[in-house]
Amino acid sequence: MELFYTKNIDNGTAVLDEQESIHCTKVLRNKPGDIINFTDGIGNLYSGKLLATKGKEVAIEIIERKASQDSRPYYLHMAVALTKNYDRFEWFLEKAVEIGVDRVTPLVCDHSERRVFKYERAERLILSAAKQSLKTLFPVLDEIVKASDFIATVEASMNDCSLYSTSHKPLKIMGHCRKGEKIAITSILGEAKDAWIKKRDRESMHTNMVGIDLLRKPHIVIMIGPEGDFSVEEIELAINNDFKIMELGNSRMRVETAAVTAVTAVYLNYLESK
Amino acid sequence: MELFYTKNIDNGTAVLDEQESIHCTKVLRNKPGDIINFTDGIGNLYSGKLLATKGKEVAIEIIERKASQDSRPYYLHMAVALTKNYDRFEWFLEKAVEIGVDRVTPLVCDHSERRVFKYERAERLILSAAKQSLKTLFPVLDEIVKASDFIATVEASMNDCSLYSTSHKPLKIMGHCRKGEKIAITSILGEAKDAWIKKRDRESMHTNMVGIDLLRKPHIVIMIGPEGDFSVEEIELAINNDFKIMELGNSRMRVETAAVTAVTAVYLNYLESK
Repeated sequence: MELFYTKNIDNGTAVLDEQESIHCTKVLRNKPGDIINFTDGIGNLYSGKLLATKGKEVAIEIIERKASQDSRPYYLHMAVALTKNYDRFEWFLEKAVEIGVDRVTPLVCDHSERRVFKYERAERLILSAAKQSLKTLFPVLDEIVKASDFIATVEASMNDCSLYSTSHKPLKIMGHCRKGEKIAITSILGEAKDAWIKKRDRESMHTNMVGIDLLRKPHIVIMIGPEGDFSVEEIELAINNDFKIMELGNSRMRVETAAVTAVTAVYLNYLESK
Repeated sequence: MELFYTKNIDNGTAVLDEQESIHCTKVLRNKPGDIINFTDGIGNLYSGKLLATKGKEVAIEIIERKASQDSRPYYLHMAVALTKNYDRFEWFLEKAVEIGVDRVTPLVCDHSERRVFKYERAERLILSAAKQSLKTLFPVLDEIVKASDFIATVEASMNDCSLYSTSHKPLKIMGHCRKGEKIAITSILGEAKDAWIKKRDRESMHTNMVGIDLLRKPHIVIMIGPEGDFSVEEIELAINNDFKIMELGNSRMRVETAAVTAVTAVYLNYLESK
């Protein structure tokens, strides 16, 4: 299955932009009348019939809006320092999208060597990874933020997020390599999951708003520092702002490997047999 | 910390080969009298003093053999199909070494498009990833094997492995994307861990061989297929040979992402707080 992307959807018709049109008709050689699948990147999956394949922008007659398979029982916000070797940060982006992430904030930290973020390149990379792995809900990409500002403001900024209910406090986690008390990420996530299920069940019993309550997801924020690690000040600030410090085990990991390991730990925490 | 590698260790002296010598003296500019760390790749970590930095092969006077931090409470054998885009298989190798793997077998499957394995390149890549992540026990790299042969012979071939005790059956797992009954990889691994601990405790009670028993590790084998998936015949053969079929969730993952996710699932299954 191939997935196309467009925001241009109106009244039963959708239009692919030039880039997507070329991919659809020139590269994959779709012809008028062919059925294709596409998404708006905000959670909807459509199928439609190609109307014409000439011109720069290809039009599609929408046949149906399908139920999307792309849903996670959590909302994951990754805040990751840019890596010295920039490719490695982009690799993190690709893998995070493939496994599942809802929002990404690139960080500049006290010990960061790399401070320039290529926003548009990252946006294209996310689009390509999302299409490849058939995601219909694309992650939000932030501009680069100073780590200390992020720590201080992330909770307040969450009120903008429609999936986030103020009755649920977010779970905030930081990973660093300095000494200190650390809890295995699997334990942090496992306990939070159990507590969240209990709270949800208790609330839905009282309010009878089961439907709405199920729309709420546990909100998880994870911060990963640069090659030079978070500074002592950044770590103290995080602890004072209710961040838990995670243990990621004995393996010495690169920045982007630690970040993808954290994304995977969250993903596996909600995995169920079929 | 920088880690060098040599097999040439004898009677209190070690010699770095040409490649490592250049890296040590030309790139990192170490001088006679400097203390460096190196490994033999079979689990030992040494520190030593550079004797001279001239000539193609640099000699080191061994000061001490240190306790290695590089130990895992499990033995992980990954058998992964080569990817269509060969870089992606090499990326899997790098990440698997970084997170932790003991043996890697490249597979050619019924639906494989890529059938040529670059053994020496892979060996160099493993060396570089192991040094970078300070591993002192390098994984064994096999030549490419047909998936059906691997399924039929992997258990017998384990008798060659010194860490493997015949009293512990290996845990064999296959990942595929076809329909069928699947168990979450987290459940498979969690149950196996519990069963293994019980068995170990029971055996050490009876035999009093606690020290030897602790050297035994649970042995886990995981097979990941190519872009075209395992064939129905390969899957049936695996099930008939006691492979468990794992569920890896709703995310559509590339071959190498699924493989690294499996390596990470095993790693996280044995993670402990500090």
